[in-house]
Amino acid sequence: MRKGEQTRRHIVLKSAELFNQKGYAGCSMNDIMEATGLQKGAIYRNFKSKDEIALEAFDYAIDTVSQHYSEEIFHANTVLEKISAFFNVYEDVINNPPIKGGCPLLNTAVDSDDTNSLLREKALRAFHTFLNMIEEIIEEGIQNGELKPNIDTKAVASFIVAIFEGSIMASKLERDNKHIAYSKQQILHYLFMLQTDGYI
Amino acid sequence: MRKGEQTRRHIVLKSAELFNQKGYAGCSMNDIMEATGLQKGAIYRNFKSKDEIALEAFDYAIDTVSQHYSEEIFHANTVLEKISAFFNVYEDVINNPPIKGGCPLLNTAVDSDDTNSLLREKALRAFHTFLNMIEEIIEEGIQNGELKPNIDTKAVASFIVAIFEGSIMASKLERDNKHIAYSKQQILHYLFMLQTDGYI
Repeated sequence: MRKGEQTRRHIVLKSAELFNQKGYAGCSMNDIMEATGLQKGAIYRNFKSKDEIALEAFDYAIDTVSQHYSEEIFHANTVLEKISAFFNVYEDVINNPPIKGGCPLLNTAVDSDDTNSLLREKALRAFHTFLNMIEEIIEEGIQNGELKPNIDTKAVASFIVAIFEGSIMASKLERDNKHIAYSKQQILHYLFMLQTDGYI
Repeated sequence: MRKGEQTRRHIVLKSAELFNQKGYAGCSMNDIMEATGLQKGAIYRNFKSKDEIALEAFDYAIDTVSQHYSEEIFHANTVLEKISAFFNVYEDVINNPPIKGGCPLLNTAVDSDDTNSLLREKALRAFHTFLNMIEEIIEEGIQNGELKPNIDTKAVASFIVAIFEGSIMASKLERDNKHIAYSKQQILHYLFMLQTDGYI
């Protein structure tokens, strides 16, 4: 990797962690300089503005989390194992999150939902990608006879994403992983009951 | 109400809406001046700092939402009706939220979770109050034979709060109430199955 490329990646990585902890509005160029150990000039040689850094940092953060998912989901076979995999990525959000600051989708969504920024558009795309992944898992589970056929796929997928993000919010606020563990336990219980050989 | 008291309330109300939309870090004293139509001097006669406004604005925002809950829950008798009541308050979060900007607990939690601020402490207290309310509803439901006795009350309460906050995040991001409606539908389905005369 060329030196210039290395500097650019360093800025993106450090900024991604920073934005994910302090929020977009909460980060100044000075914060970015401090986190990267670079002078303003070096940063502006690579990026036009804080906006440009934020957009690339968001992509980097989502890619990082996605890699963790891919590893977790690799050995998952059933619907319940696949849904578990998402929660496993954040099971120690307090001491060992996939990226510092917790979930970049949650943080960026709440940060940008009342604006019309490019950042909100990016968060919305990441949200749809996540929703579609869950929908496909549910859909496949219905196709292969694992889940009952009368499930409202879109509703269940939306429900799972809500639980996932809401439980990260709760654990981050309380600085205790228990809320993610509780939510994982309860959604697995629910999905168990939606299985064709489940209770109902 | 005395004139000074009116001015103070006006600042708190306008700032609560502002912080709830733009976040704490995203609001400057200039934004507060613009939203209130007041000069800096008039604001500083009432508050020492942006911090002091933010703390009082958060209390006001939570009180506002709580009043909506109280009205919604007044006619609710069963566990399912009581849990529905929470979702009903936000059912039109896009066009008619209880307070502009959506849920102050969600917004303030995400905004403050990586800091050690008084604002985070306030958000944490509001979160516990909410959790305890839900726990009591579940506990009562078990006591009066409505719900199965083997329910993990703390886990179900945490699950419901996560669903609630996560579905508001999703609806706010997509600017579509459907995610709150989906989550309400699914959690009622789950609670239905936890009833003593439910499916299992």
